[in-house]
Amino acid sequence: MIAEQTLTEHYFRVRLHSEAICRGLETEDYVVQPVVDVSPPKWHLGHTTWFWETFVLKPNAPGYRIFHEDFSYVFNSYYETVGKRVLRTDRGNLSRPTVAGVYAYRAYVDEQMGRFLDTADLSPDLHALILLGLNHEQQHQELLITDIKYILGHNPLLPAIEMPFLEHQPQRSGNSVFIPEGIYTVGFQPTDGQTDGVFYFDNEVGAHKVYLNNATLAGKLVTNGEYRAFIEAGGYRNFRYWLSDGWAWVNANSVQAPLYWHQVDGAWWYYTFDGLKPVDPDAPLCHVSQYEADAYARWKGQRLPTEFEWEVAASTVNPALNWGARWEWTNSAYLPYPGFQTAEGAVGEYNGKFMSGQMVLRGASVATPDGHSRTTYRNFFQPDKRWQYTGIRLVTEA
Amino acid sequence: MIAEQTLTEHYFRVRLHSEAICRGLETEDYVVQPVVDVSPPKWHLGHTTWFWETFVLKPNAPGYRIFHEDFSYVFNSYYETVGKRVLRTDRGNLSRPTVAGVYAYRAYVDEQMGRFLDTADLSPDLHALILLGLNHEQQHQELLITDIKYILGHNPLLPAIEMPFLEHQPQRSGNSVFIPEGIYTVGFQPTDGQTDGVFYFDNEVGAHKVYLNNATLAGKLVTNGEYRAFIEAGGYRNFRYWLSDGWAWVNANSVQAPLYWHQVDGAWWYYTFDGLKPVDPDAPLCHVSQYEADAYARWKGQRLPTEFEWEVAASTVNPALNWGARWEWTNSAYLPYPGFQTAEGAVGEYNGKFMSGQMVLRGASVATPDGHSRTTYRNFFQPDKRWQYTGIRLVTEA
Amino acid sequence: MIAEQTLTEHYFRVRLHSEAICRGLETEDYVVQPVVDVSPPKWHLGHTTWFWETFVLKPNAPGYRIFHEDFSYVFNSYYETVGKRVLRTDRGNLSRPTVAGVYAYRAYVDEQMGRFLDTADLSPDLHALILLGLNHEQQHQELLITDIKYILGHNPLLPAIEMPFLEHQPQRSGNSVFIPEGIYTVGFQPTDGQTDGVFYFDNEVGAHKVYLNNATLAGKLVTNGEYRAFIEAGGYRNFRYWLSDGWAWVNANSVQAPLYWHQVDGAWWYYTFDGLKPVDPDAPLCHVSQYEADAYARWKGQRLPTEFEWEVAASTVNPALNWGARWEWTNSAYLPYPGFQTAEGAVGEYNGKFMSGQMVLRGASVATPDGHSRTTYRNFFQPDKRWQYTGIRLVTEA
Amino acid sequence: MIAEQTLTEHYFRVRLHSEAICRGLETEDYVVQPVVDVSPPKWHLGHTTWFWETFVLKPNAPGYRIFHEDFSYVFNSYYETVGKRVLRTDRGNLSRPTVAGVYAYRAYVDEQMGRFLDTADLSPDLHALILLGLNHEQQHQELLITDIKYILGHNPLLPAIEMPFLEHQPQRSGNSVFIPEGIYTVGFQPTDGQTDGVFYFDNEVGAHKVYLNNATLAGKLVTNGEYRAFIEAGGYRNFRYWLSDGWAWVNANSVQAPLYWHQVDGAWWYYTFDGLKPVDPDAPLCHVSQYEADAYARWKGQRLPTEFEWEVAASTVNPALNWGARWEWTNSAYLPYPGFQTAEGAVGEYNGKFMSGQMVLRGASVATPDGHSRTTYRNFFQPDKRWQYTGIRLVTEA
Repeated sequence: MIAEQTLTEHYFRVRLHSEAICRGLETEDYVVQPVVDVSPPKWHLGHTTWFWETFVLKPNAPGYRIFHEDFSYVFNSYYETVGKRVLRTDRGNLSRPTVAGVYAYRAYVDEQMGRFLDTADLSPDLHALILLGLNHEQQHQELLITDIKYILGHNPLLPAIEMPFLEHQPQRSGNSVFIPEGIYTVGFQPTDGQTDGVFYFDNEVGAHKVYLNNATLAGKLVTNGEYRAFIEAGGYRNFRYWLSDGWAWVNANSVQAPLYWHQVDGAWWYYTFDGLKPVDPDAPLCHVSQYEADAYARWKGQRLPTEFEWEVAASTVNPALNWGARWEWTNSAYLPYPGFQTAEGAVGEYNGKFMSGQMVLRGASVATPDGHSRTTYRNFFQPDKRWQYTGIRLVTEA
Repeated sequence: MIAEQTLTEHYFRVRLHSEAICRGLETEDYVVQPVVDVSPPKWHLGHTTWFWETFVLKPNAPGYRIFHEDFSYVFNSYYETVGKRVLRTDRGNLSRPTVAGVYAYRAYVDEQMGRFLDTADLSPDLHALILLGLNHEQQHQELLITDIKYILGHNPLLPAIEMPFLEHQPQRSGNSVFIPEGIYTVGFQPTDGQTDGVFYFDNEVGAHKVYLNNATLAGKLVTNGEYRAFIEAGGYRNFRYWLSDGWAWVNANSVQAPLYWHQVDGAWWYYTFDGLKPVDPDAPLCHVSQYEADAYARWKGQRLPTEFEWEVAASTVNPALNWGARWEWTNSAYLPYPGFQTAEGAVGEYNGKFMSGQMVLRGASVATPDGHSRTTYRNFFQPDKRWQYTGIRLVTEA
Repeated sequence: MIAEQTLTEHYFRVRLHSEAICRGLETEDYVVQPVVDVSPPKWHLGHTTWFWETFVLKPNAPGYRIFHEDFSYVFNSYYETVGKRVLRTDRGNLSRPTVAGVYAYRAYVDEQMGRFLDTADLSPDLHALILLGLNHEQQHQELLITDIKYILGHNPLLPAIEMPFLEHQPQRSGNSVFIPEGIYTVGFQPTDGQTDGVFYFDNEVGAHKVYLNNATLAGKLVTNGEYRAFIEAGGYRNFRYWLSDGWAWVNANSVQAPLYWHQVDGAWWYYTFDGLKPVDPDAPLCHVSQYEADAYARWKGQRLPTEFEWEVAASTVNPALNWGARWEWTNSAYLPYPGFQTAEGAVGEYNGKFMSGQMVLRGASVATPDGHSRTTYRNFFQPDKRWQYTGIRLVTEA
Repeated sequence: MIAEQTLTEHYFRVRLHSEAICRGLETEDYVVQPVVDVSPPKWHLGHTTWFWETFVLKPNAPGYRIFHEDFSYVFNSYYETVGKRVLRTDRGNLSRPTVAGVYAYRAYVDEQMGRFLDTADLSPDLHALILLGLNHEQQHQELLITDIKYILGHNPLLPAIEMPFLEHQPQRSGNSVFIPEGIYTVGFQPTDGQTDGVFYFDNEVGAHKVYLNNATLAGKLVTNGEYRAFIEAGGYRNFRYWLSDGWAWVNANSVQAPLYWHQVDGAWWYYTFDGLKPVDPDAPLCHVSQYEADAYARWKGQRLPTEFEWEVAASTVNPALNWGARWEWTNSAYLPYPGFQTAEGAVGEYNGKFMSGQMVLRGASVATPDGHSRTTYRNFFQPDKRWQYTGIRLVTEA
């Protein structure tokens, strides 16, 4: 049981981490949106703040006055319930509110939140909502990092910037993990309600039984060097390795290598937060789509794990998987667990409505905030997405 | 064990059924392609013939001379391995070969096939390939029907045409089916090899165990009348019922009702092979997307079955489901079974490469050829497709 | 003054020519629409018939009964005033009405028109309307030819078909024409009202003065051989020769040669109504866009004529231009003459509303019907279009 | 003859004006690009500076060292000649170089230019090039203003900003101008070479004769109040008033009013640099496309002037037009004058390659820099563009 005191500390620590990620940015870097998947850093900072204002302070803090009506409008991502204004703008066109304005918004809301957390007698529901808000902000922290990387990595100056983690450190050793055929229990099982401080999302809750067949998960992730062999073997030019949708994606986008890789005079380089660097053959591969992961596995005569094979290998079996460097693509579609229920209200839009057309990733990455990973966590993206820190772990039957 | 003699009969019966479907068409109806999902009937008739010529006769019938080189090119759907010609045309632009030419192609190949089947001593592999060809043609028969319906149902004259089945007959009664929690075996289990005449596709083979929770499948499909209540309750205008992708689809396409439904002076009509008719409230709903099926279920506070719940309810449990009127959308993504292997060669492209972005449908429809359905059969389409005879069966937990 | 008798003859002669053009078609060729610019031959035959029914018979022939309400809907190109039906279909999706049905429509309307012309005492306005209808049908005759060529020339079988003219005959000799600086009168000048049988369109009427500078128009059109030199000099790969829009068009469409040209083992062939033939270096170039015409002229250090230079060179000067093999691209935008007035009613939509974004072509082509060309005629297309029989004539200043 | 001294002054005055326009911007406003037509203010400031560096200093100033290689790449608009780098980015994605970096670039180049102009003995060609550069920067000044307006006018906060001119001042009175039929000379006629300080663009040079018919140009521009009557008469909903392309544009974009107009509770407001204000019925209409201008004129039974009618009315006739508040759409396509020659080299791309698909605007607007307008000036945009200060002047024949 975490005391209220601790929750305030937790709140400030999370909030400060969002700003720490942005410490190296120029004002201009906060504003642009090169593609629709990427949000301007300014927007992440504002949107996470809007969450606290809208769902915690406004309905619960007596006498709370919202910072500015326009901010509520601009930083609301739940468009379905709003849409009242005339002007339809994209996030990347919004020069106003300014970055300074967004930081002022954060400061105002943080001060109010501090006061509120210090004095309020939080109901279990409100406590749970605050945990949700913290986890929501942590999710945006990883997106902040990957969106900043996209913005700078698509700027012809390829600028370096300081970030509080190492992207391409060597892999920890790991033994392969064998899963014997049988019934396993997967999914998050809350023991004492959510107020004990252990957080979970609605999409992972509901321990349930699954039947798994014999399978062996590789102890290490696929490395850059291993993947380069696939490129050099013509992997991107041979339709036989690809899912039909994947092959269409390769051709429509002229894909020839992972995101951020550039071939210069025959050698492979990649953009990192330290600038353009030679690809390290021993580091785990990063920034591949599920299509690429699947094609690579097929080229190797292996396959990707299912999300339940991964979860069992990471939790039940001993010794378990070493994980955490890359989000690991599975070949499981993102679908509801037995008994899944959508929560009421705007918060209910959180996860359930995305359960179509996306694939599950398991684990965590070097960009995932501390305390925001667990073996039941279900991350999800469309199979063509690759600006996250995504990698590949192979499986062999039996 | 089916004798070779019987195989010849089987061959001719299947081939004649393709032509029987088209008996009511005008020459012009064979040619057009209103949308990319729909192929001109002429193309189906030519493509299925090309299969026999290319995979059976050419490599196995000594001295076989191909009918015409251009036909091989035009009716080949495996574009990845061809693509040698200069001109890139869409199927719907091909006025030549003519319909008469296609029927001549069929006659020529049928005569050669008859001779070949009468005299050849078929190896097990060749026998299996012929079964595949027959099932391939049966798949195209259902597409022929649905594509003809699309062509005529999008013609402002809404012409009637005779078809060898009833689209909107009353539902057979059926009791709901309860599945008790436990381990079940699903998937096709070949007993004595494929040469015993029992056909299966590569995507359904591989009996394996799954763990199911308590669930109850409805005994009847959702009717037109029940679905109309969803329309009238504003179901198409309220985002809360929809998956995110589904809501985008509704808005991008201004969807307001199932395919082929038209509102005339406040009443609902639908296009059928008998022309425009008032919607029968008691007939099972047809021509909905998986998005619509999912939204309807959510509106009802229920859900769609998984493909394994369906398979168990249709086979293991007693009494089992009544099925066969509509392809039933499940909430299972179309993914490989444990141990799935892609076959070698062009035939290997058959199913596996589509295992991304599609949802499984189970059962069969009024348009499915006799002998082409079984409880392990896995049909699959993208969740926005609705020109097949698709319907909804609801599930309640426990 | 043409007698009513003669008008009937004229009517039947024009109507029969439309059908003569289609004599070599298979039923399937009438139906398809490979691109939006091209209409199915069936549609041309129906639409021209719809004109007579709608504008002549229905309002003027007592007791006239329309052939079929659906035909009126399907063959109406004036969508702005209709649009009442639910189904929105493209011309190329319409398998019905059938080709036989369209010919029956023509026969019915022709019989009614024959009866009407024999007995009616035509007012000057009605006489003028009939002349408009005949010229409207003649315009569609040239489109019929070019659309049929597009349909067959984009079919991988590249079928030959008989047509009542020679596409690539040798050029008639011609001397260059010098225009001395000064005032000239251009535009059609009706002498005795339109009922004297001399037809003109609303866009060409209104004789008016223009001031021209010294210019010399080439006596012959650019030949295929001359244009091939432009291709071989890298003309399609060097932006310096191209208008900005033209360069974008070249790149977006990977244009490398005129329409219908194919390079086979290093040699140039083109599709003709006689099938695929070697490009004749001495025949006048055909099937180029205005962008290509302009780029070629720039490469030669010359330019295209204005429409008034062309008109003066073709009419006022002696000896005048030899013309008629190709529609000749000018560098004049299609804009109204001084005092241009839009006619009342649906007929008024005829020309004026297209006076934006199109360029004028002057002359006529081998596909133009006899009696449908004059020196004041203004043809017009967007500068990227090239499926008409378009060619290039160069100009030098002074 | 302007002395070298004066040229330096002229240079600094123009350069400072670019920065003056931006004085009210926040850093963030410099960066975004809401639509492809609009460039980020940062880009304008960098690009105009790149012009001086690339065309003047680099080839002519001995020992000149370029500021930064990346800047040359990023601020080059002549993509055809460059394209060497791997990354393809849009202007609106470029967070780097920063705004501060761009101002440093300007300061560096200005200092070098000042030194160069003070000491160099300028050849006539170089003098002409410097005049071109100044006019180039003045063109970008008007674009800077209109792009800033677009950026702020599409921000939901609709921020006000100070600008050095009044957008919506009352119209100066003006009498209508009658042009009697006859020959007139139009086009710029350089008297003593370009070094006399009178600048002209390549597209306007070449005095030549044209023949005009009687016409009367209105003395005043169409006002907001007059145009509102067109809106209220259903002008945007009746296809009869519109060119075919214009009607397609209205429908594809759901256009219902001029750009920046918003209907709030039945009243019309527009965004101005002072924020959202009620539409002033007496101010001249602004921000309409050529399609809207043409439709309005047709609704009034009048028409737009040709560019030569405008030029004659503004220069030859006495008393001449009052002009300068709005760029006035003409119904003349932007095409070359007799004898037009494209200049050599990159500067030659300046105007000629855009002579397709655009319409001429004449006059100037409240946003046009002082000294950058004359009666022979030919501005040009595609007919659907309306973010410039565009308005309407009507013409009646005779």
